[in-house]
Amino acid sequence: MQHFPLNRAFTLLEPGPVTLVTTHDGQRDNVMTITWTMVLDFEARFALSTGPWNYSWQALVNTRECVVAIPSAEMLDTVVGIGLCSGRDTDKFEKFGLSRHKAGKVKAPLLSACLANIECRVVEVIEQYGIVVLEGVAAHADPHREQRSPLHAIGDGTFVTDGRVLDRRVMMRPKLPPSVL
Amino acid sequence: MQHFPLNRAFTLLEPGPVTLVTTHDGQRDNVMTITWTMVLDFEARFALSTGPWNYSWQALVNTRECVVAIPSAEMLDTVVGIGLCSGRDTDKFEKFGLSRHKAGKVKAPLLSACLANIECRVVEVIEQYGIVVLEGVAAHADPHREQRSPLHAIGDGTFVTDGRVLDRRVMMRPKLPPSVL
Repeated sequence: MQHFPLNRAFTLLEPGPVTLVTTHDGQRDNVMTITWTMVLDFEARFALSTGPWNYSWQALVNTRECVVAIPSAEMLDTVVGIGLCSGRDTDKFEKFGLSRHKAGKVKAPLLSACLANIECRVVEVIEQYGIVVLEGVAAHADPHREQRSPLHAIGDGTFVTDGRVLDRRVMMRPKLPPSVL
Repeated sequence: MQHFPLNRAFTLLEPGPVTLVTTHDGQRDNVMTITWTMVLDFEARFALSTGPWNYSWQALVNTRECVVAIPSAEMLDTVVGIGLCSGRDTDKFEKFGLSRHKAGKVKAPLLSACLANIECRVVEVIEQYGIVVLEGVAAHADPHREQRSPLHAIGDGTFVTDGRVLDRRVMMRPKLPPSVL
């Protein structure tokens, strides 16, 4: 993972990839799958959408730090698996054999296998809408990331990468809203 | 364009496609290119990010209505062109030969050539971050849309569709931040 210019970090999220968001609650690392993110500004300001039902929420709100990582398509089953269990009772790094390494400016870890990692501070939590406003403070990218592709979630248990549809509807069934079953 | 279930409209935006957002200011229709959007809820709640420098902003804030449309990859030059001129002095529908038709619940028009259209009401404008919270009130989709693909913007003047990179850096140069030139 190499240094990536912070003022170009928006180009990592602007295409709308699935992300993995790591936190550190003071004692343990955790990671969640987040597909709802948005760029807010070229100068490394982003938003993500989640809520208190998510175990990572407390760590995010209390520590006001996280890492937004962009997994590659080969990581699909890990990405889906992470979304299906909770840090409340599971060490997801162990369960999925996820390598992490120390970030420079936040306590949440970087994910070594991802295409890129953005270390972020929480600027504001807009609770009414579950919007977390983030400011990037450092970014890192795999120098060979262009040989791999990110994932785009459709939201019905299917994903698209390079125009190919990858179907994980059966696996994701417990987490999908009834409207898409 | 056929009726599309509103409680599945989030699946149109969750993959992170480039969008075209139409408004009607009481006198004229306008359209802007928006690549910064996010799903907030399965029940048709979304966010987009822009600001007062954008001529559509006033119409969005005053009328509290818009249509979020998802263009297909063949519309790339129209999508880029729309982002390079302003409704202040340009009728973009005429300039780009964009067909529109009447929406059911809002005054902003639907874009006939797009993969899908979501009629939206503005729930809240969070001015500090340029976040507009939207609620979908009706949705429509091209029944043959799976034969065409949406665009994903990288943010540096390139776009990705079905794994292919489409380069519009020269055309977009006036609108790009210096960090990506």
